[in-house]
Amino acid sequence: MKLQSVDNIKFVEGGVCAAKGFRANGIQCGLAHAGAHVTKKKNDLALIAADTECTAAAVYTTNKVKGAPILVTKEHLKNGKAKAVIVNSVNANTCNADGVEKASKMCELAAAELGISPEDVIVASTGVIGQILPIEPIANGMKELAEGLTYDGNPRAVEAIMTTDTMPKEVAVQFELDGKICTMGGMLKGSGMIHPNMATTLTFITTDAGISPELLQRALSDIVKVTLNRASVDGDTSTNDMVCVLASGAAGNKVISHEDADFEAFENALYAIMMNLARMMARDGEGATKLIECAVGGADSEKTAETVAKSVICSSLFKAAMFGEDANWGRILCAVGYADAEFDINKVDVKIASAKGSIDVCKNGAGVEFSEEKAKEILGEEEIQILIRIGDGGFSAIAWGCDLTYDYVKINGDYRS
Amino acid sequence: MKLQSVDNIKFVEGGVCAAKGFRANGIQCGLAHAGAHVTKKKNDLALIAADTECTAAAVYTTNKVKGAPILVTKEHLKNGKAKAVIVNSVNANTCNADGVEKASKMCELAAAELGISPEDVIVASTGVIGQILPIEPIANGMKELAEGLTYDGNPRAVEAIMTTDTMPKEVAVQFELDGKICTMGGMLKGSGMIHPNMATTLTFITTDAGISPELLQRALSDIVKVTLNRASVDGDTSTNDMVCVLASGAAGNKVISHEDADFEAFENALYAIMMNLARMMARDGEGATKLIECAVGGADSEKTAETVAKSVICSSLFKAAMFGEDANWGRILCAVGYADAEFDINKVDVKIASAKGSIDVCKNGAGVEFSEEKAKEILGEEEIQILIRIGDGGFSAIAWGCDLTYDYVKINGDYRS
Repeated sequence: MKLQSVDNIKFVEGGVCAAKGFRANGIQCGLAHAGAHVTKKKNDLALIAADTECTAAAVYTTNKVKGAPILVTKEHLKNGKAKAVIVNSVNANTCNADGVEKASKMCELAAAELGISPEDVIVASTGVIGQILPIEPIANGMKELAEGLTYDGNPRAVEAIMTTDTMPKEVAVQFELDGKICTMGGMLKGSGMIHPNMATTLTFITTDAGISPELLQRALSDIVKVTLNRASVDGDTSTNDMVCVLASGAAGNKVISHEDADFEAFENALYAIMMNLARMMARDGEGATKLIECAVGGADSEKTAETVAKSVICSSLFKAAMFGEDANWGRILCAVGYADAEFDINKVDVKIASAKGSIDVCKNGAGVEFSEEKAKEILGEEEIQILIRIGDGGFSAIAWGCDLTYDYVKINGDYRS
Repeated sequence: MKLQSVDNIKFVEGGVCAAKGFRANGIQCGLAHAGAHVTKKKNDLALIAADTECTAAAVYTTNKVKGAPILVTKEHLKNGKAKAVIVNSVNANTCNADGVEKASKMCELAAAELGISPEDVIVASTGVIGQILPIEPIANGMKELAEGLTYDGNPRAVEAIMTTDTMPKEVAVQFELDGKICTMGGMLKGSGMIHPNMATTLTFITTDAGISPELLQRALSDIVKVTLNRASVDGDTSTNDMVCVLASGAAGNKVISHEDADFEAFENALYAIMMNLARMMARDGEGATKLIECAVGGADSEKTAETVAKSVICSSLFKAAMFGEDANWGRILCAVGYADAEFDINKVDVKIASAKGSIDVCKNGAGVEFSEEKAKEILGEEEIQILIRIGDGGFSAIAWGCDLTYDYVKINGDYRS
């Protein structure tokens, strides 16, 4: 999938290992064969380790049902510091009476191998909810996992966090701070149970830039809002969502401690990472064949633009029409109309676009004649833009989603078997 | 589909013609061949006519995009009186520059044939949004439509309002008011673009009971909240939703004008009609193979119970699991957890049930062991109950939904062609 460019940002290779001083590894420890659902043979346990202590920040799911790893990680990040991330797929370790105990154990096992404190370990799990996590495969695999850590281990780690994902999702960038080249890279898993307004999915980001814990948290909270929180696959908010960033400072820049130009540059890099990961996630939504980008402009506030854009990409009817490559724009206007925001529906214009061009389908709230043939050609592409103007205001927002397909139903009709 | 019984209510035949003094008819006027999408050969224009002037009340969609018929009907019902309903399927007459003109014309055409004032006609349309409504087929068919009105014309009328519906939806009941036997009957269309918290679908109800306009409106607004507004198929709120009731008073009861025991009996009858129509609508949700009923109890308010019940029946992941007859209760708890309401997730119990029995799957927010074989047997039924307790409170609510299937995607992937 083509990366979306951002000013002053250069894309590089390496994912979470792109930044200086981060090693990663992933192995198949065998969770799939220990009572949980059987997936194709793939890695299921990942470790990311920093050479030095990092500033760390995280954002978590807003679901009242929180995976046990979330509770443990929150506790460990109270001091804003971390040195490693341990994460498994297959089993979410959620809604289990012994969940916290198992999540803590995962930290202890990783810490023992790395020679660090368990409190410096971030833990995450993803997979089936409500099945006891077997700790033996993790305990048995930890030595191999830690010994295999390398500065180019990103591909093994990113495979280990995938569940129904059909492709690994990673991106890394370089940018300049204080005359120093800094690098930042991230990986993300997420395909179903994805809905905006929450942290959404497991995302791990590393950087060698130096930044204070407070400003790292602020940057992450800011950028989550306009990236992951604007992507939806199916309207379901997971119980285990977490996005976390580790910043080592190894690049040697003056540690960012004010909202200055360096902070802006840092946020810009974080945006480049997280916006591209959000796009990949939407494109790889369960069963999806298309990435749908909805851009709303002319709003009287960013909130209004965001609400309308999310309403469109969350509409099941619209999503099914996109799968059918059917320019049924009435469904777009319908979703615009039930968005919980104030604007004049009679001033709404809608355009559909892709690499094959663009056409107007609605002006001032009413249909305009258009070529169905041209519409079909535009909608035949894999990346579709829905461009909506809702007035003369100066605010805009973009949201990302995907089409609704037979495969979404197939994947989720019997996920556990 | 088996009707759900209600105390003091007897089910009878006849739909909107069950009550004294209501005639109905439906014809195929040919809208499908006049520029809109082609459906199977079926009636597309219906007329319901009362022998005498009726008290009338309606509730409309909350979508900002409102079909032109909604605007015209609102105007006509300002005086709380009506004598007829004209309704077409195939074309929603929405987002068209000439929509109001065409909707008004439909009223004039019907009124002319019936010898009544156009202001006494309720008009509704359902079908594709944003295509010009051809008035000629309606004008050409009106004479035949009106001449064919009969006191047993309900089946022809109910066919005419169907779109992607696979079965006609109607129910009629008898109840006693003031020593007089009263009758009430209704028809509903609705299969997709259905979401709670709005009027939802086209529903027409007639009764020979006598009631003041204010109390008829109050009864309708009350009962919509606990019936149609608690049913969801796909989370999409239509632009043309409308539910209206005509009350003729022909039964001879003392006209209800206070919130007394008679008003309660009237609301009880209206509940029996609308609850059963809501169940039929959910069961006939686009592509659905199952009716899912979610009952939430133990809440500290009805609002909390309702929010949780709706959250569960709206979850795409849960709906797909139901299609797969997979007891993946973690998805139920996930949807309970992201419901926008306050309660202790650690006190939540979940049970799944059907005509084949019931089993506990979650106690106090954590999984309990259960027989997958028994679960499969329970979920193999066509009517599934999800029973949730969220605490020790005294409030409860029921919501209705359906499973998410391949056919939902198929039906909506290319609706217009």
